[in-house]
Amino acid sequence: MTARTPEERHDGHRGGDGYGVPDGHGHRPGGAGPPDGPHADGPGPLIGRSVPRKEDPRLLTGRGRFVDDLTEPGVLHAQFVRSTVAHGEVTALDLDAVRRVPGVVAAFDATDLGLGDITARLHRPPEEFTETAMPVLARRRVRYIGEPLAVVVARDPYAAEDGLEAARVAYDEREPVVSEAAALADGAPLVHEAAARNTLVDVAPFATEGIDDVFAAAHRVVRVEARTGRQNALPLETRGALAHWDDRAEQLVLRTCTQVPHQVRTVAAGCLGLDERAVRVVVPDMGGGFGLKCVVGREEIATAAAALRLRRPVKWIEDRKDALTASFLAREQHYDVRAAFAADGRILGLDADIVCDMGAYSCYPFTAGIEPLMAAAELPGVYRVPAYRVRGRAVTTNKAPSAPYRGVSRPQYVMVMERLFERAARELGVDAVELRRRNLITDFPYTGINGITYDPGSYRESLDLCERTLREEGWYERRDAAAAAGRRLGIGYACFNERTGYGSAAFAQRRMDMVPGYDLAEVRMDPGGAVSVTTGTMSHGQSHETTLAQIAADVLGLDLAKVKLHQGDTDRVPYGWGTFASRSVTIGGSAVRLAAERLGEKLRRLAAARWDVPWEETELHRGTVRRRDVRDTEVPAVPYAELAALAHFRAHLLPKDLEPGLTATASFDVFHDGTFSNATHGVVAALDEDTGGITLLRYVCVEDCGVAINPQVVEGQCRGGIAQGIAGALFEQITYDERGEPSATGFLDYKVPTAQEIPDITLFHLETPCASNATGAKGVGEGGTIGAPAAVLNAVNDALRATGTELDTLPVTPEAVHRALHGA
Amino acid sequence: MTARTPEERHDGHRGGDGYGVPDGHGHRPGGAGPPDGPHADGPGPLIGRSVPRKEDPRLLTGRGRFVDDLTEPGVLHAQFVRSTVAHGEVTALDLDAVRRVPGVVAAFDATDLGLGDITARLHRPPEEFTETAMPVLARRRVRYIGEPLAVVVARDPYAAEDGLEAARVAYDEREPVVSEAAALADGAPLVHEAAARNTLVDVAPFATEGIDDVFAAAHRVVRVEARTGRQNALPLETRGALAHWDDRAEQLVLRTCTQVPHQVRTVAAGCLGLDERAVRVVVPDMGGGFGLKCVVGREEIATAAAALRLRRPVKWIEDRKDALTASFLAREQHYDVRAAFAADGRILGLDADIVCDMGAYSCYPFTAGIEPLMAAAELPGVYRVPAYRVRGRAVTTNKAPSAPYRGVSRPQYVMVMERLFERAARELGVDAVELRRRNLITDFPYTGINGITYDPGSYRESLDLCERTLREEGWYERRDAAAAAGRRLGIGYACFNERTGYGSAAFAQRRMDMVPGYDLAEVRMDPGGAVSVTTGTMSHGQSHETTLAQIAADVLGLDLAKVKLHQGDTDRVPYGWGTFASRSVTIGGSAVRLAAERLGEKLRRLAAARWDVPWEETELHRGTVRRRDVRDTEVPAVPYAELAALAHFRAHLLPKDLEPGLTATASFDVFHDGTFSNATHGVVAALDEDTGGITLLRYVCVEDCGVAINPQVVEGQCRGGIAQGIAGALFEQITYDERGEPSATGFLDYKVPTAQEIPDITLFHLETPCASNATGAKGVGEGGTIGAPAAVLNAVNDALRATGTELDTLPVTPEAVHRALHGA
Repeated sequence: MTARTPEERHDGHRGGDGYGVPDGHGHRPGGAGPPDGPHADGPGPLIGRSVPRKEDPRLLTGRGRFVDDLTEPGVLHAQFVRSTVAHGEVTALDLDAVRRVPGVVAAFDATDLGLGDITARLHRPPEEFTETAMPVLARRRVRYIGEPLAVVVARDPYAAEDGLEAARVAYDEREPVVSEAAALADGAPLVHEAAARNTLVDVAPFATEGIDDVFAAAHRVVRVEARTGRQNALPLETRGALAHWDDRAEQLVLRTCTQVPHQVRTVAAGCLGLDERAVRVVVPDMGGGFGLKCVVGREEIATAAAALRLRRPVKWIEDRKDALTASFLAREQHYDVRAAFAADGRILGLDADIVCDMGAYSCYPFTAGIEPLMAAAELPGVYRVPAYRVRGRAVTTNKAPSAPYRGVSRPQYVMVMERLFERAARELGVDAVELRRRNLITDFPYTGINGITYDPGSYRESLDLCERTLREEGWYERRDAAAAAGRRLGIGYACFNERTGYGSAAFAQRRMDMVPGYDLAEVRMDPGGAVSVTTGTMSHGQSHETTLAQIAADVLGLDLAKVKLHQGDTDRVPYGWGTFASRSVTIGGSAVRLAAERLGEKLRRLAAARWDVPWEETELHRGTVRRRDVRDTEVPAVPYAELAALAHFRAHLLPKDLEPGLTATASFDVFHDGTFSNATHGVVAALDEDTGGITLLRYVCVEDCGVAINPQVVEGQCRGGIAQGIAGALFEQITYDERGEPSATGFLDYKVPTAQEIPDITLFHLETPCASNATGAKGVGEGGTIGAPAAVLNAVNDALRATGTELDTLPVTPEAVHRALHGA
Repeated sequence: MTARTPEERHDGHRGGDGYGVPDGHGHRPGGAGPPDGPHADGPGPLIGRSVPRKEDPRLLTGRGRFVDDLTEPGVLHAQFVRSTVAHGEVTALDLDAVRRVPGVVAAFDATDLGLGDITARLHRPPEEFTETAMPVLARRRVRYIGEPLAVVVARDPYAAEDGLEAARVAYDEREPVVSEAAALADGAPLVHEAAARNTLVDVAPFATEGIDDVFAAAHRVVRVEARTGRQNALPLETRGALAHWDDRAEQLVLRTCTQVPHQVRTVAAGCLGLDERAVRVVVPDMGGGFGLKCVVGREEIATAAAALRLRRPVKWIEDRKDALTASFLAREQHYDVRAAFAADGRILGLDADIVCDMGAYSCYPFTAGIEPLMAAAELPGVYRVPAYRVRGRAVTTNKAPSAPYRGVSRPQYVMVMERLFERAARELGVDAVELRRRNLITDFPYTGINGITYDPGSYRESLDLCERTLREEGWYERRDAAAAAGRRLGIGYACFNERTGYGSAAFAQRRMDMVPGYDLAEVRMDPGGAVSVTTGTMSHGQSHETTLAQIAADVLGLDLAKVKLHQGDTDRVPYGWGTFASRSVTIGGSAVRLAAERLGEKLRRLAAARWDVPWEETELHRGTVRRRDVRDTEVPAVPYAELAALAHFRAHLLPKDLEPGLTATASFDVFHDGTFSNATHGVVAALDEDTGGITLLRYVCVEDCGVAINPQVVEGQCRGGIAQGIAGALFEQITYDERGEPSATGFLDYKVPTAQEIPDITLFHLETPCASNATGAKGVGEGGTIGAPAAVLNAVNDALRATGTELDTLPVTPEAVHRALHGA
């Protein structure tokens, strides 16, 4: 491995710069970052260095503080009376006995609290979008088992649980809608009685003229009908909140684990009838989110309402049963997709019907629309697709509602596309990797049939490197030898790109009510020269305390220890959209960089005034400002600390155009189609002939997320994402019986892979920097999860090749494999 | 009482606009504020209206939260081992037994903690200023009884107290220096062994050429040698702190009751060896400060150090004994002043020698210099003094150190000047009020012999109104009738001005190390149109939550309920100098006004972009922006909420030059001599012939603090200040015996007046707006306290007139009066 030159870094992608490779090369040494920052020779550019995580000292020594670690004097504890029927009318809700339970302080139902609804909105015509509202507590109609009906507040959590048992609820049950097919059936019961149908979203954004003729004339048409299972994003830390009224600040302080603190503020203020400024959302350490915590939960709001009502602190911590059954689920989608191919293997057209089962509600802020809209827009992915027709629908069912989950629709639609290519390869009699090569986008920027312009990526190179690695490791020979020996080994791939850092252009296109495009950063230097960075994004495990600090420290030429990130406090930044869609380093990080540059300019102006030279003639250099035009020995550089002391303590001496203090703010938004990370995943799977058991033997991921601010962090994101992708590919699923009863209420039923089930993963990193933001990074929070299901499923199908059976449903289970091997 | 016209308001002062007058007029009705704001017709300009205090609902219902109301999980409690000798070397300090006391967790002495010193600095030559350092815990030398030697940390406050008793301290005692005379004596023991003398500050800033000739040629020379007693500022809430380390923020969070949060941060960071950004000072509700809390206490820092060391929350709450003996004291000054008068009563010259007894240390940030420097610079006060010589000294003694106390040196030097005028009047045989009239400054701006330029004030008018009131109420007749009947009634006056809102010009002149000139404000509108104002000042009872909100609401034409002030959090504003020197409304309020105006401009720019007109063609109007040039019916006004939603939620639609969010910041500083409030106080006192007891029968205060943002608040400041001034005039004093033992350790010894001892006070308000700041206000936090001692002492002396004795020492006690009446 060679250190990168600036030319290499900024001149497009290049291969071979792997880290974590098993050949012992280890991590890239530090100091190889861009030398073109404002400091010519700082303490070593920090971008691209795997500096140790700033989060680690506290998290690894047990000093992290999560919501459940927080308390307030006199705190009370909330739990929720929840519906035990999936669909019905509540005919009686009697909380009197609850209130008599020892230790119970209060119990409130929807009428008691009188809160506004949680509403997610799109600006679309009614035939495309049905607006529904989610009440904080169910009023009369209940729509899923686990839906909150009342909040019980008690002196301790045990008394609150006792209180739940004393609630008396009577229902007039209705027939539940428990599948997307049932939801779409004629005469289906309506989940939302005021709506005309169970279809909440129904869009058909693309229909290439003459596409039917394309299909009619095609050499081959292959079809995949695929289903993906309903999953829970399963953050280690369940949801929770601690709310109290701060009389001095005249604010409801809501400490909760959310990816989107300001959006929680907006919704909470709306539901509670408070000014937004009267709500302060504070987020402590978080044990994961994965999208489940980027929607606003009813329980947070109800907890806040109880605290307001009682004027006492109220805490709610979700247990795992509620997390699995009554929080937010994801991933349940149905695809029926046909692809037309020419004889030479070129894809000629794509015709897709996508139905997403959203469960009972459109959640805020990401309506039911987000999944079908994203799938419909981005299905073609890394391939040149000349003709495209798609219909995307979201249906409502009597199941726990959905939230975006790491990758959103991409793990599903990538799986479908990659299945199509594997199937076409079989039918065309060509190698599936070769077939992909013939169709991959290689000329950038490329504007697709979907109107999206793709910035440069290493689509072809990542596939080549991934395949070469497996080939050189001898897996192809082993597969053939195994087959010869009657054992079943398969190799599967997935190629994909991932639009990251959606800016306002993308969200405005989706016609969302609130357009989460920009994000803000503030960089503030204290009187001694140490720096605080405040961001509107919200790390819930992504190491932003390290990576965003690296960005600011790099600009200013400061030691990383002198830069501290603050996040998760709605009072500290005017607004922030939070962390989702791999947007934090691309958008939030760009804002940090711009703000740091502005602060650097202020420092240079301060020093320039002292020398009476234009500020452009100065430069930042290792925590000082120096003159560009003279040697240090003639005009000594001025340390930041000296300038900072001036700006704070002797501000009357400042140049007239500079205000006291040293603070700079910046915003960053993406006004185009965004940027695209890409990767190829390659998997080797072995099947157990007797049990159908699936063992993953090898995992190779060639990832290109542009500039890797901290390669070790990128690696962590990839490894975690791949593990989560494998979880969805092979293990995790929540099913519902005909009553709408969820199958999984704990880890006995909800099968979560352990380290044992995750193979050794080798990561390679290609770097095609993003040219359209300030960091060059493309985002990597979701990528791992996106590629794994497709690659795993393809590997299983490759192992099943001799059976002639192909499996298109996730998770792919030993039962399904056994059936494929041995019949029903 | 008539409502004010704008001409009246802005055209200099005018009389008769009293409130709280006893003729039943009551408070000025609302709605009489300046109509020249940017909104032509808002919900009623708020400036000048006695709107109810926003603080009251929480404070009056017991929901205020003071430091002692706060806690943290696992909190420990600190108390301090204190010196029992006034001057000596600690030869042994044994904490082993302390650490064995049940419940004691730790005990630390200076060596254990290894902290940096607290140092206050002036940039003056060594003959003028001796720099001394105050260790957080005494090292070897102890300099006053009560000086902290070690901090004991225990599970509860009682165990901590038990721990103190187990400490074994041995001293090598030295002769204590317990008076300013002893400090200045040849061969005096040195309080600071490294210093050359006990004089810490020795300045002689003015010496008019030929002044000795002026005195030699004068018609009369009168002399006053005066002493004022050592007092405690006596906030209802004693000092206290709760410190803990926040692992996530990587910050020491120090919650303490201070007037100067950022300055505490600066000092704490310095002593603890932390970056400033790594210290967050948060101030909850405060029960008064009066200057005692505008210096940095050793105990706060030691508490923080203990929390850092133990990595556990540590709380310290001062008891009243420590507050009286070991916190900060004030006011002990000695004046020897001669005044030369012409035969026509004109003052010809002033020759002053001022010695301030600062106790053991120069405190941070206000060095021992602040009292003699202020007294020396401002002694001439409201009078035209053509020749001036002054020497001002600060000496160190073995008593608890000093902090500024409401009015700083002014209650003392005003008392001296007013005594001089009363004495001169007797000697010249003219009425003392008339003598003042002949010498008052009436032509403004006036640049005095001290180089200070005084902005317009109502010096003459306030004296006239004050005298007229007492005259019309018949007090002069009653005095004469009493004298005729052998009873003793006296009438006394005090005329004074008060420089307020010292900006950087004033502090830079004093050559302070840190120049507290500017202050900052941020005004932020939330997405719904509600406003948060953040200030660097720190209300500790002055109602800033109300008055600063009034300023912002007035600019923006918003209902007061829509504006909320935030203060007391060092993370929320880059720096702030805090609240002292009546600077908050003059400087902080001006910054708020400017920031609000900038926010208003942003709103107008947003609306203007929609109409495609220059923003100057728009105006703010009752929470909307409207076009100036067309009628509402043609182009409807745009509500702030609509603009704010755009700026936050759909920021991609903003004009290019506006960033997302709606935040504006501003700073304000005073680059000239500042502004001067003024007042005349008139007092009627009766003496008890038998006991020497002094009863105040009547108190009239004619106050001019410029624009009164909230007259009720002004009145509260005046009444409280007068009561505190009377306390110093008649009651409160801490004396020391020859061992340096303080006389008062509780309220049995330290005599605090109750409502019973305070007479009915009538307030009149004249309004000469300040033309040099953005609010027109001049500051009123200290005025009441400044005038009372002089007026009370003059009234007592007037009542003693027949005895021929005059008293020049404060407090003036029944013993002294009895002696004057009946001899020793």
